[in-house]
Amino acid sequence: MRDFSQDHRWLSINTATVRKSKGADLPLPDIIEACVKRGIRAISPWRDQVQAAGLANVSKLVRTHGLELSGYCRGGMFPAADAAGLKAARDDNRRAVDEAAELRAPCLVLVVGGLPGALQGKAAHKDIALARSQVRDGIAELLDYAKQARMPLAIEPLHPMYAADRACVNTMEQALDLCDELDPKRTGALGVACDVYHVWWDPKLEQQIARAGKERLLAFHVCDWLTPTADLLNDRGMMGDGVIDIPRIRGWVEAQGFAGYSEVEIFSTGNWWQRSHEETLDTCIARHKTVV
Amino acid sequence: MRDFSQDHRWLSINTATVRKSKGADLPLPDIIEACVKRGIRAISPWRDQVQAAGLANVSKLVRTHGLELSGYCRGGMFPAADAAGLKAARDDNRRAVDEAAELRAPCLVLVVGGLPGALQGKAAHKDIALARSQVRDGIAELLDYAKQARMPLAIEPLHPMYAADRACVNTMEQALDLCDELDPKRTGALGVACDVYHVWWDPKLEQQIARAGKERLLAFHVCDWLTPTADLLNDRGMMGDGVIDIPRIRGWVEAQGFAGYSEVEIFSTGNWWQRSHEETLDTCIARHKTVV
Repeated sequence: MRDFSQDHRWLSINTATVRKSKGADLPLPDIIEACVKRGIRAISPWRDQVQAAGLANVSKLVRTHGLELSGYCRGGMFPAADAAGLKAARDDNRRAVDEAAELRAPCLVLVVGGLPGALQGKAAHKDIALARSQVRDGIAELLDYAKQARMPLAIEPLHPMYAADRACVNTMEQALDLCDELDPKRTGALGVACDVYHVWWDPKLEQQIARAGKERLLAFHVCDWLTPTADLLNDRGMMGDGVIDIPRIRGWVEAQGFAGYSEVEIFSTGNWWQRSHEETLDTCIARHKTVV
Repeated sequence: MRDFSQDHRWLSINTATVRKSKGADLPLPDIIEACVKRGIRAISPWRDQVQAAGLANVSKLVRTHGLELSGYCRGGMFPAADAAGLKAARDDNRRAVDEAAELRAPCLVLVVGGLPGALQGKAAHKDIALARSQVRDGIAELLDYAKQARMPLAIEPLHPMYAADRACVNTMEQALDLCDELDPKRTGALGVACDVYHVWWDPKLEQQIARAGKERLLAFHVCDWLTPTADLLNDRGMMGDGVIDIPRIRGWVEAQGFAGYSEVEIFSTGNWWQRSHEETLDTCIARHKTVV
């Protein structure tokens, strides 16, 4: 297992972590500048932030500063209530692949979607098996496109509390079943993003990380699970402030040969998004060296 | 699959559902009276409610009215930070078995506990594997005692969002692995409580219900998953108000031969606990007949 205590060479910042500074939106160029200033070597930007700043502009900034990406957030949201919705998802996912390629991301992260309409509070139906089947078909189709663009797809199993509205792929085992089905030869074109927040609770986690192996471990995300957790979406904790044994999980991932970035992704309406982004980034660096 | 549309013969009320009426605590005798008045045949009371009303008193009320129990809530909370804590949990669980026997419950439901201290906001450690090992040992020891009292133990896998503070058994598969280990002969002394709220998201649910079989399906709980869900603990929905395909899951359970009560367990600070218990119970009956 790599020693992170001496520097933050392998720290990446998911830009949602500093999406807000003291409660106000922080534009992506400002986030990039603050990261570069601190010697942070990698980021994982969100599409809406890239769009707001302009893809060409962001691409130029990233290249100028020699930044790497640890992923691109995000594609997915495959299920839909009708054919038009499925086609819209397909087209949007292809654009996401193109953007990821332009930014030289190592993978496009997929948050696969849940029951259509549930995120807006009104699910079109209750058939999660149908949603899962649409996810399978959506990934299968996107995979052909992504292979041509040489852009690996990383299925991110989301915590089961998001099964209805954000992602109906909820365990590493389920994500790897999809990988086995759609990329049986383990070409590296399809894998998983392992976010400790989503999977820490899973009694089969160690076993499934071993099953994934290096070819399918495309990203590693960290934050922490707070007790109590005040909000299902936006109350993630800073590493070290919660109950997740992050080094243990990182050890399992690195035992498979994963040697990439440890990406910090924290959504925190009540705490970190209220602080200055400088404080948040400095804390990320400190915690990366001590508790990740 | 049984037809529930004509009556509510197989409806049970978990008494937490009407723990409060218009925001005020409702004593268990009042809950029992309101259930009896509506022809509800079974309840599943919580220990704190029984204690407040007096065990002998509750036992007498139940027998006088010819009420059945669909379960007794609850034992568990096995993990502890030290030997004294483990012993206290052991002793308390034995008392729970005795109470369940006095009330002629068909099973004692086990919410197994998580990281010690996490429920109070300060976890003693982050070793969920250790907690799980203490759960295993705790159930093994309690099982000997419960067998003598002829009281089946029903492990309730809780939703993974409770893994830290309430239960580190989080899937049906995990609960059944424990059953296989501790009661390999399927004697009926150890099984599971299947609560749709906790397990509806699980891609292996149908398979694991079939694995459980009739001998191990000791209880069936219903409510619904709301989108959005405002609170991790106390924002459960009334059946029909959320996204869970309850009849599909009930069909799987009954296909194994389960022929017991469908127990309504709703924790709802912001909605149902603010209404009158009469309205809540009447709604439970109506929904039992139409969407369960």
